[in-house]
Amino acid sequence: MSEQQWSTGITKIEPNKVLLRGYPIDQLMGKASFAQAVYLALVGELPPPNAERLVEAILVSSIDHGVTPPSCQTARNIASTGSPLNAAVAGGVLAISRHHGGAIEDSMIFFIEAVKRKEEAGWDSAKTAEHVVETYRGQQKRIPGFGHRIHTRDPRTAKLFQIAGEQGLAGPYVQMALDVQAANEKLSGRNLPINVDGAIAALLCEMGFDPGLANAFFMMARVPGLIAHVREEQTRMRPMRQIIAREHVYDGPPEREWPKK
Amino acid sequence: MSEQQWSTGITKIEPNKVLLRGYPIDQLMGKASFAQAVYLALVGELPPPNAERLVEAILVSSIDHGVTPPSCQTARNIASTGSPLNAAVAGGVLAISRHHGGAIEDSMIFFIEAVKRKEEAGWDSAKTAEHVVETYRGQQKRIPGFGHRIHTRDPRTAKLFQIAGEQGLAGPYVQMALDVQAANEKLSGRNLPINVDGAIAALLCEMGFDPGLANAFFMMARVPGLIAHVREEQTRMRPMRQIIAREHVYDGPPEREWPKK
Amino acid sequence: MSEQQWSTGITKIEPNKVLLRGYPIDQLMGKASFAQAVYLALVGELPPPNAERLVEAILVSSIDHGVTPPSCQTARNIASTGSPLNAAVAGGVLAISRHHGGAIEDSMIFFIEAVKRKEEAGWDSAKTAEHVVETYRGQQKRIPGFGHRIHTRDPRTAKLFQIAGEQGLAGPYVQMALDVQAANEKLSGRNLPINVDGAIAALLCEMGFDPGLANAFFMMARVPGLIAHVREEQTRMRPMRQIIAREHVYDGPPEREWPKK
Amino acid sequence: MSEQQWSTGITKIEPNKVLLRGYPIDQLMGKASFAQAVYLALVGELPPPNAERLVEAILVSSIDHGVTPPSCQTARNIASTGSPLNAAVAGGVLAISRHHGGAIEDSMIFFIEAVKRKEEAGWDSAKTAEHVVETYRGQQKRIPGFGHRIHTRDPRTAKLFQIAGEQGLAGPYVQMALDVQAANEKLSGRNLPINVDGAIAALLCEMGFDPGLANAFFMMARVPGLIAHVREEQTRMRPMRQIIAREHVYDGPPEREWPKK
Repeated sequence: MSEQQWSTGITKIEPNKVLLRGYPIDQLMGKASFAQAVYLALVGELPPPNAERLVEAILVSSIDHGVTPPSCQTARNIASTGSPLNAAVAGGVLAISRHHGGAIEDSMIFFIEAVKRKEEAGWDSAKTAEHVVETYRGQQKRIPGFGHRIHTRDPRTAKLFQIAGEQGLAGPYVQMALDVQAANEKLSGRNLPINVDGAIAALLCEMGFDPGLANAFFMMARVPGLIAHVREEQTRMRPMRQIIAREHVYDGPPEREWPKK
Repeated sequence: MSEQQWSTGITKIEPNKVLLRGYPIDQLMGKASFAQAVYLALVGELPPPNAERLVEAILVSSIDHGVTPPSCQTARNIASTGSPLNAAVAGGVLAISRHHGGAIEDSMIFFIEAVKRKEEAGWDSAKTAEHVVETYRGQQKRIPGFGHRIHTRDPRTAKLFQIAGEQGLAGPYVQMALDVQAANEKLSGRNLPINVDGAIAALLCEMGFDPGLANAFFMMARVPGLIAHVREEQTRMRPMRQIIAREHVYDGPPEREWPKK
Repeated sequence: MSEQQWSTGITKIEPNKVLLRGYPIDQLMGKASFAQAVYLALVGELPPPNAERLVEAILVSSIDHGVTPPSCQTARNIASTGSPLNAAVAGGVLAISRHHGGAIEDSMIFFIEAVKRKEEAGWDSAKTAEHVVETYRGQQKRIPGFGHRIHTRDPRTAKLFQIAGEQGLAGPYVQMALDVQAANEKLSGRNLPINVDGAIAALLCEMGFDPGLANAFFMMARVPGLIAHVREEQTRMRPMRQIIAREHVYDGPPEREWPKK
Repeated sequence: MSEQQWSTGITKIEPNKVLLRGYPIDQLMGKASFAQAVYLALVGELPPPNAERLVEAILVSSIDHGVTPPSCQTARNIASTGSPLNAAVAGGVLAISRHHGGAIEDSMIFFIEAVKRKEEAGWDSAKTAEHVVETYRGQQKRIPGFGHRIHTRDPRTAKLFQIAGEQGLAGPYVQMALDVQAANEKLSGRNLPINVDGAIAALLCEMGFDPGLANAFFMMARVPGLIAHVREEQTRMRPMRQIIAREHVYDGPPEREWPKK
């Protein structure tokens, strides 16, 4: 055996055979949704049935947020120089970091610690939340996953928590998120709503995800959005323009209803 | 109106409202699959019902191909230095290019031209394919989307064409792909099977996609696979090891069956 | 011999010995300038003495061009999200492409073809230039390396050509650049001055460089500038700000003179 | 004044004028070396005369280290897929991180703390070094900047310290580096020589650099080396080969002497 031999448990390749986590990929195709295959690739097993809809919803929730986020600014700036699609997407992914998308990981760590504290102290969730909020206020630290520049009541948060409830996945982490939001308002008088990062974080905790994968969800979700922006930049704009986010005008379809029964 | 004003048709952001191509994102969540939302973001409309399963299958087909592709080698090498997840993923995306994933775009252009030639000449598909293969052979050029280092009969191709047939989406481009494969064997005596890039290319043609988005599908599909490899590198391997693809051993689950009825 | 054995001619590593293109690196250190070592790494030999000052000047000329170029916008946007220095620099490098920095390669190819045409036709440089300019005008194509958004007489071009003259390196490519500039003015009445990309291109031709390395010079030169911008963003700005290039104010040192005799 | 107005102190651009930190760039060209301009861009002032040679030597020392480092593996893997030069270089830069190049920053922080400790405790350098080494040994932590996979006596370290001595720049940080090396050997019996990262770190401390710029030096130095490797991959190798670092053979020039008197 070579000294440099190493092991991998993700995909086995043989002539005319591709096994993803043990499943022949051509058996997955046509049966598994992409979101199921994503879960399988990352976790090693297919998602439990009640998690499927939630994983889809998390990925849909973050697919795009318009032209102002730095990942979009970056991808468009790179595309504007004539660089190919993959370079612009790669640049956009480099901007998914601590202050943009990265709050999901910090927020997961926060919720895991808060729920652990609740269990260790034998308190209820609301009391723990007040205690934790007070501690953060005393240290003048911001709790990750709360507050948004634009949204005072993020429609994505409400929907994610609704689906989690319907699927029986609104457990102690979702409760803690709601209690921290309430404690914030009670103690500071400020409305710092759970943002979409915080909501995703709570749900990834409910599903038992590794916090090291938190930002992965934002990346996977946002790559299609970045591609749409890069393609629009390549096909509608002249190269090397100065891209000023706040000067954009939306000229897409007007608001419309989901057409399916 | 400012001279730098510009237009975008992808996403409209207002306080407490996010519209993706006109649809409130919280209406899509829980109803649309991620694959449908991807199609919507890229194309501007929801996929027609018969395309949904095909888009899912295309994305599933390319989610991973083990440790040898250069995108995986790149992502693991970057991860091995202690760089964060997004940097390793971005590096992997930079390796999705002309010779790796990029064949989809070239193959789409090939099929579009071949079918156009068929229509202009008034030939049938098989005759056109033989003509085109002869031309390429005369110029000693490789037809993009055929042949594979490992697979002599790519299981992903067969499955993609089967699903396309079931959904009524196996039209002139799929036929051309099959005829080119046959012409190749007839004229050269060599088996150069349609590979997964060629199969995806034919299906994206059937669905009317812009070839400029061809590689986007490979990128979106492969990002989760890259994330799985980066996470495995971060959690199972020591930093700065020499990563030699061919010395890997697969230690994941043995072959297993899709569990659902 | 292994089938995967391969050769490299750049650097030989042995215990306690590093040879760059054959020279012990510790012999180069303290004797060779960084610019000489760059030339050695890229070309395989030390630069001829009359090229040393020119290579230094080319690298100095492109070290920075303020906050408006897309490479700077990209690097600052990435830094603004909390990504580390190397990610921001990598993003900036991804924006050094066809329309930004990439004109050097196109311009080299243009000059090489024009001088070849001159030799084949037996014309003088001015006549060839007029012929080429007319051809481009007839095809409504832009000649790469001429014209600038801001500078009507780029101070870097004048200085580069002056140094080339002093070092005996202002040969047929520099002459062709000047003649194309004059022909442009004569035939179109427009001042399309040789820009810094065009000037560097002519000089790289004079020194016999491979056009495939053209953009390398811009990258090597601009990386320090990008680093300065990233560091300024990290230390002076708040994260996640909207970065609008045209709203910047310069607050660095006022104009000053090179201090040395 | 606009609310988004912001300030930058690096480069002022006016029509026909480019000021780098106040100096007209065309005055710097031909007078300043690239290394001086790099220092100016990063620090805001020209280097003091005794630092010039040291900055050049630091940049030369790290220009390349053969094919095994992950930055080289990454850049070659990306190039091998047909991606352009800038994408391959960007990928390489993403691999310059904590375990590869990043030791310079950690090592600077270590030396700054050790020298501060020395001053606060009123000890001499050797005693402080023994104290610090013991503390690290007790915590089973590695001191950053010491030890190398290949070199037991890194020729670059010796040369850097020699030049620093000649320029009067071998002060308390260089002394601390030597004392830590000695203390390591005395207390553990193991030879953990100052590596090139540690040597550069000590010298950047002597010159008063911000540790946040430490890895910048490695990046700036290594980009030309990465370019040489990418260009070799593009021009000598076939696309999509499996790149196995340890199977390389060096076929460049044999060892040779610096030719100048």
